[in-house]
Amino acid sequence: MALLLDNQFKELPPDKSVDTKLFLEAVSHLPPFFDCLGSTVFSVIKSDINGNITKIRAVYIKDPAKYVTLQDILEAEREAHGAAWPKVGATLALMWLKRGLRFIQILLQSLADGDRDENNPNLIRVNVTKAYEQALKRYHGWIVQKIFNAALVAAPYRSNFLKALSKGEDVNDEDCLANVRQFLVNYTATVDAIYEMYTNLNAELDYTV
Amino acid sequence: MALLLDNQFKELPPDKSVDTKLFLEAVSHLPPFFDCLGSTVFSVIKSDINGNITKIRAVYIKDPAKYVTLQDILEAEREAHGAAWPKVGATLALMWLKRGLRFIQILLQSLADGDRDENNPNLIRVNVTKAYEQALKRYHGWIVQKIFNAALVAAPYRSNFLKALSKGEDVNDEDCLANVRQFLVNYTATVDAIYEMYTNLNAELDYTV
Ligand SMILES: CCCCCCCCCCCCC/C=C/[C@@H](O)[C@H](CO[C@@H]1O[C@H](CO)[C@H](O)[C@H](OS(=O)(=O)O)[C@H]1O)NC(=O)CCCCCCCCCCC
Ligand SMILES: CCCCCCCCCCCCC/C=C/[C@@H](O)[C@H](CO[C@@H]1O[C@H](CO)[C@H](O)[C@H](OS(=O)(=O)O)[C@H]1O)NC(=O)CCCCCCCCCCC
Repeated sequence: MALLLDNQFKELPPDKSVDTKLFLEAVSHLPPFFDCLGSTVFSVIKSDINGNITKIRAVYIKDPAKYVTLQDILEAEREAHGAAWPKVGATLALMWLKRGLRFIQILLQSLADGDRDENNPNLIRVNVTKAYEQALKRYHGWIVQKIFNAALVAAPYRSNFLKALSKGEDVNDEDCLANVRQFLVNYTATVDAIYEMYTNLNAELDYTV
Repeated sequence: MALLLDNQFKELPPDKSVDTKLFLEAVSHLPPFFDCLGSTVFSVIKSDINGNITKIRAVYIKDPAKYVTLQDILEAEREAHGAAWPKVGATLALMWLKRGLRFIQILLQSLADGDRDENNPNLIRVNVTKAYEQALKRYHGWIVQKIFNAALVAAPYRSNFLKALSKGEDVNDEDCLANVRQFLVNYTATVDAIYEMYTNLNAELDYTV
């Protein structure tokens, strides 16, 4: 569980503001994970997510004192970009990043909950599909949806996926899933807080790609 | 035809060596072209090709006097990387880039030759498929091949594609295709020379992604 648990997301403060620095630190450990999945399909997704993170970090390091929380960034960009906002800058990057994070959250949650295709117990397609339907599908046009369906067969076997999550340690499935549940606590809270912020600031868009 | 003809590839010298600087200059005008095609599908391809170009340029600017021709780069990397070569550095980047260039070449040639699906005269799927089969398919595993088939429907209409090629000028199809043929002369010679170089240096690999 080295990969996941060594890089826990931090507990949120009572006001649920997300510290930019801590968030960037924690989230930057996720993309390398796609490498373990062993198909070229995932490198495309990895680089999309990496691009989001790079864009947010580029804004942050311009003035760390000004951008202490993610909300500080959104508010400054709303101020600076006028009508172009929110389809711009780190606001746009985080809008998409949070969907990828939600995808990962639902996928892990579904595994932790034991959702399973009884006829194919070693496949995670039901879990991946559930995550896709809830987090991403509505933002994808029909061509990208079709590409998702084609890519789905590249999803790793359940056993290999759990092994990848546990990289560096030899744990059984149940211990691994216990660790996943542990990881999900602060992770889910953080993703939820970002979604709430987008709703509150009216920063969410629903165009499709 | 602004896009294509304003950025002609240069005529090769008799020894068919490809000048690195001129090549990078000419090839850097191709990726923006994918933007005209209007689907998110193409931005993924654009960034793969852009990545190749960036990698080659990064090697070149380290020592322009040493890397006058593309062959200078391959030979220096063969020297430097031992057994890891040719799956490394600018050699790997150019290995893939040339396949994308070949894809574009065959696609344009097929249009210039008038290959056409008589039942769907305004589609370019036959041309795109021909280019894919000759330039890329054998380097793609079955999942990526399936994704290609899903992505194929995102290909622009013939009329829109020709319009995009002619960006900035109002030309009819035949004039546009005459310009394409003109463009293809040095372009094809350059791509051929790069393929020959890979064969001569035994630098070609045929693993699939
Ligand atoms: C030769 C063969 C040719 C075939 C070519 C086919 C190419 C196929 C392309 C398919 C799409 C790949 C996934 C990427 C999709 C991306 O298009 C979207 C939107 O991407 C956002 O777009 C914005 C502008 O609208 C900004 O540029 C954002 O960038 S910005 O930072 O600049 O603001 C950017 O992230 N991201 C997404 O949908 C997010 C995807 C997250 C994925 C989560 C995991 C899914 C796992 C699935 C497992 C099965
Ligand atoms: C949520 C939804 C999830 C779905 C996610 C789906 C993701 C789909 C991914 C499909 C693949 C997209 C195309 C990219 C393919 C690339 O994998 C390959 C190899 O790419 C090479 O790989 C090397 C290592 O082996 C190095 O990294 C090279 O990089 S290096 O510079 O670092 O050395 C790199 O270019 N390039 C290719 O096959 C080249 C492709 C050229 C394409 C030419 C035009 C085709 C037009 C088609 C029109 C219809």
